[in-house]
Amino acid sequence: MKIQPVIMSGGSGTRLWPMSRDARPKQFLKLITDKTMFQETALRVSPREEGFAPPVVIAGARHGAIVAKQLAEIDIAQAEIILEPAPRNTAAVAAVASAWVEARNEDALILLMPADHHIPEAAGFRAAVANAAEAAADGHIATFGIKPDRPHTGYGYIEAGEKIGDGIYRVAAFKEKPDAETAQSYLNQGGFYWNAGIFLFRASVMLEELNKHAADIRTAATAALKESVMSGAARRLDEDAFAAAPSNSIDYAVMEKTDRAAVAAPIDVGWTDIGSWSEVATQSDDESVIDLAGGNIIRSDGALVAAAGVEGLIIVATEDAVLVARKDDAQQVRAIVDELKQRGRRDLL
Amino acid sequence: MKIQPVIMSGGSGTRLWPMSRDARPKQFLKLITDKTMFQETALRVSPREEGFAPPVVIAGARHGAIVAKQLAEIDIAQAEIILEPAPRNTAAVAAVASAWVEARNEDALILLMPADHHIPEAAGFRAAVANAAEAAADGHIATFGIKPDRPHTGYGYIEAGEKIGDGIYRVAAFKEKPDAETAQSYLNQGGFYWNAGIFLFRASVMLEELNKHAADIRTAATAALKESVMSGAARRLDEDAFAAAPSNSIDYAVMEKTDRAAVAAPIDVGWTDIGSWSEVATQSDDESVIDLAGGNIIRSDGALVAAAGVEGLIIVATEDAVLVARKDDAQQVRAIVDELKQRGRRDLL
Repeated sequence: MKIQPVIMSGGSGTRLWPMSRDARPKQFLKLITDKTMFQETALRVSPREEGFAPPVVIAGARHGAIVAKQLAEIDIAQAEIILEPAPRNTAAVAAVASAWVEARNEDALILLMPADHHIPEAAGFRAAVANAAEAAADGHIATFGIKPDRPHTGYGYIEAGEKIGDGIYRVAAFKEKPDAETAQSYLNQGGFYWNAGIFLFRASVMLEELNKHAADIRTAATAALKESVMSGAARRLDEDAFAAAPSNSIDYAVMEKTDRAAVAAPIDVGWTDIGSWSEVATQSDDESVIDLAGGNIIRSDGALVAAAGVEGLIIVATEDAVLVARKDDAQQVRAIVDELKQRGRRDLL
Repeated sequence: MKIQPVIMSGGSGTRLWPMSRDARPKQFLKLITDKTMFQETALRVSPREEGFAPPVVIAGARHGAIVAKQLAEIDIAQAEIILEPAPRNTAAVAAVASAWVEARNEDALILLMPADHHIPEAAGFRAAVANAAEAAADGHIATFGIKPDRPHTGYGYIEAGEKIGDGIYRVAAFKEKPDAETAQSYLNQGGFYWNAGIFLFRASVMLEELNKHAADIRTAATAALKESVMSGAARRLDEDAFAAAPSNSIDYAVMEKTDRAAVAAPIDVGWTDIGSWSEVATQSDDESVIDLAGGNIIRSDGALVAAAGVEGLIIVATEDAVLVARKDDAQQVRAIVDELKQRGRRDLL
């Protein structure tokens, strides 16, 4: 049974402003390697790797062309591109993906993945997926529990319960992003893992669980897919039908309610959720950076950026905008984006 | 007797990099007002003001066109533009200026001024010049002693001696840039003034003093002027002849040796030598700046610059370069310029 990768590429995050823009969210940027994060995600589970079907990509309505272009650049053909008329969060995406597989009279394993995660050890990741496949085939919805290397307060945690296979456990509990003290206690205690937000499941199992816990989402997604129309190389979900789906995360809508949740753990493949500039630690090439004191994160689309006598800063220069912020307070970018909205500067968002 | 303004515009300062470049030094930039510092200097003593002849501008060989253009923009005609094939410091400039006046069989008062000083109270400055004119006509070389409002360690000081007129004193001593303690003692003691680097003197007096103390500079300057050729709207000094002039400042070559030095003091006209970004405190217009924490100096040629969670910084964005430095360590810019030279990035200098 081939695994059906489904790449969730609907994010329009502005936390990596000014490089990340509405028209070009961070997953479509070359932030870490010489490929975009979306491309790295697609290559990680490419049909050229053993056991994977060509991917389904579920993206925002405005991003059909960039998805097609970026797939062509890495020679991935026969992908299905599904466009959301408006974002309805990850539960609706899981429902669409499962309905898409069901419509093909298949019951493939779906590997549902965000497009903006950085996983340097791709082979290790594929091995972890292969290891979780049996539990998923048996009817579990497998999550991936990343081995925590520090008491990170920006991620949710999964507490592993009863062992049900080699490196596979029932989920004892999902834990919201903890405070520092709680995060430290998770590390001390052991058996707690970062929730990677990646899922492996049989399409039929997800549809059953959606029917049980979020029937309106399942109904809306199925209708939106049924009434979808082709638009260029992409399939566009029906706007009205999809709008009827409540916006909810798969975590809240399904995972915290189902008794079929499993966690593959510990996964140790260098996984990072690139959520803010502080996680994009690599610099632009030397050509465009002078960092005299060192210790700054400097990125440039072209202009030479020179930092003198300053440390611990994030400096990002694009053609029409420059950001200077503190590395340890990278969330401030949100305040800048809000200010731009206030000023009506859509041209910069 | 009309006063002959001579504007020393030979600076190629890179301390205001990245806005200031070899091809466009800071005096040709709109850093403080809606006119360039060179234009403000020319307007301060324009022929439209009572008592001033059209200016002589002495500039670097590459800057003839920009001088002509910037004079045309402010409707100052009949200026004499003299180009230095290579910079030979201020003593040579004073010599050329004096020789130029002498060649016209005049003995005008020359008002020798740098092009990159900021003097917001232009009328007050002209009044100070008028007040010093009598002493200059009597054969003194008048300097202008700025009333110090803080123990600045970046300026030279003039100690006033015997009073020889209303607000005019003999110079008791020129003092190099002092350390903080010495600067404070000058303020406590009184009678010490910032040396503005502006001079008022009869051409014949300067030539006599140059003959006495720096005859080689005088000889070289006179020859360079005599053998000068017109090049477009500008007069180009003879390269070989001018190269023979030792490079020395008028302060060392003449002022510290002559017994004809006088100081007009105290002058209180808001004078500032714009030597580094820390003195350019005004911001670009709000359109191109978001400064969430406040307290940063932000300048932009166009791109929006957003600062979040940072204070006390200088951020300067041009089309091809961005500077981030500390306000209190603005001299670091020099280190960046050195690094660019090392890298052979003449395109950015």
